[in-house]
Amino acid sequence: MTVGVVEVSPRDGLQNEAEILPTARKIELIRRCVDAGARRVEAVSFVRADRVPQMADAEAVMAEVPRHSDVSYIGLVLNRRGLDRALAAGVDEVNCVVVATETFSRRNQGASVDAMVQQWAAIAGAAHAAGRKASVTVAAAFGCPFEGEVAPTVVADLVRRLAAAEPDEIALADTIGVGVPAQVRQLVRAAAAAAPGVPLRAHFHDTRNTGIANALAAVEAGVRVLDASVGGIGGCPFAPAATGNVATEDLVYALHRSGHPTGLDPRLVIGTAAWIGDQLGKATVPGALGRAGWFPAEPQ
Amino acid sequence: MTVGVVEVSPRDGLQNEAEILPTARKIELIRRCVDAGARRVEAVSFVRADRVPQMADAEAVMAEVPRHSDVSYIGLVLNRRGLDRALAAGVDEVNCVVVATETFSRRNQGASVDAMVQQWAAIAGAAHAAGRKASVTVAAAFGCPFEGEVAPTVVADLVRRLAAAEPDEIALADTIGVGVPAQVRQLVRAAAAAAPGVPLRAHFHDTRNTGIANALAAVEAGVRVLDASVGGIGGCPFAPAATGNVATEDLVYALHRSGHPTGLDPRLVIGTAAWIGDQLGKATVPGALGRAGWFPAEPQ
Repeated sequence: MTVGVVEVSPRDGLQNEAEILPTARKIELIRRCVDAGARRVEAVSFVRADRVPQMADAEAVMAEVPRHSDVSYIGLVLNRRGLDRALAAGVDEVNCVVVATETFSRRNQGASVDAMVQQWAAIAGAAHAAGRKASVTVAAAFGCPFEGEVAPTVVADLVRRLAAAEPDEIALADTIGVGVPAQVRQLVRAAAAAAPGVPLRAHFHDTRNTGIANALAAVEAGVRVLDASVGGIGGCPFAPAATGNVATEDLVYALHRSGHPTGLDPRLVIGTAAWIGDQLGKATVPGALGRAGWFPAEPQ
Repeated sequence: MTVGVVEVSPRDGLQNEAEILPTARKIELIRRCVDAGARRVEAVSFVRADRVPQMADAEAVMAEVPRHSDVSYIGLVLNRRGLDRALAAGVDEVNCVVVATETFSRRNQGASVDAMVQQWAAIAGAAHAAGRKASVTVAAAFGCPFEGEVAPTVVADLVRRLAAAEPDEIALADTIGVGVPAQVRQLVRAAAAAAPGVPLRAHFHDTRNTGIANALAAVEAGVRVLDASVGGIGGCPFAPAATGNVATEDLVYALHRSGHPTGLDPRLVIGTAAWIGDQLGKATVPGALGRAGWFPAEPQ
């Protein structure tokens, strides 16, 4: 059974690296990911350049991404202004982020959870009116760096409210990398019940070495789309110690060896991981496959 | 449900590090692991000092390990001579390793699989006659660096032959870190059928970032004892790119958060991981928990 992978390195990855890549390099990263088989790419975010300087050139990036009929570019937006920029820049999908806990929402987005639910509804309505897809990510769904444990009922209630705006997809994000598979199964079940018929996506960080376990558990629980970042680059600068999106190459290894093709070419993904590591001045990227090599020797 | 953790850093960990620790430091490592709650410790191996200089002081280590009635020390042995040394040194258990594939067996142990099965039978008989426990590990059960894929039927047949010597436990080892959870479930099922009534242990490496996923899958499949190495130190010098036993602290995080107490104190395990990293001259150990910290803030 095929599993889709949303390549988030151009946005979630680069946004959380100290090094700011030139626009041309960002476009090359996206091109390499698409060449490796990525069909959904979180390419940019349309947020305040003074808060996120890494994404100040979002329009310039979108102007030059390789366009293919089967490749969909996602822009992250948090409000109506961002949405207008995203639509003008020609994104195929917008993704909004709503944090599950009040403290993290206010610190990360400067807005309450209620305010963000309203922002999301406005974004979804306008995106749909413009003929674009709109998805929403529930951040800190597995735990909050400020409030600690997050009850599954809190996440389910939020998913229910977000579903009212008719999202094309809802993502559950373990923003700080604290989840375990048992929790993944519980949350996926709760989210599916709270938003019947809405496709679920999941987003894991490898901060505490549970990212791959969680990704496979999500697939077993019915999730068919996972976020990943080539090389494992990126994290979240607003969440203490939250290093490490799940590396695309590690996820591809685990999925392919488990009988889940992704459409990605492991050799090209591993090559892109090494390339982006070089661009960011890293001796090694977090992803393990580049060091260990595929098994058996030839990627399949 | 409780899961036992066999602490293998003093043997499998240190044996595969370039740095050779002084005897007193090895004893301190063992003492720290026991203080952190370890109740089974793979402390030493009784092999040829010219092949494995890291373990040349096995007798001296065993002479000074802290003795408690509920702490069991395991010595790795590969032949009758090693067994005699282990018995004289006062180990509580011996563990033998038989490799699942012919090429790896000859390269790693200088003997055929058949010859090693016979060695194991002799070791088990003599250990039991001396009133000690005897367990056996099937190495490369999930894949071989030389032969590639290993068929589950090959592993099951080997487990059946090893079970004839009445092991106290059989371990399935992913020596080169290539397995995925689906394979773990399949192999655990096959091994349980091939050796009914024999407790199973599992040994995972994090080489391709699947170690924690595999460990949790093994527990869900019925395995109640897992090997781990504090800090994730060690690997296998005879297997290319086989870096990284699963780190005890990462395993403890995944197990405790999944409702499986281990009897280990996470704070002391994380402290020991940092300590052994210092002793080995490493800036950081592979284990993630020392960098990321427990969640919620206070270990439970």
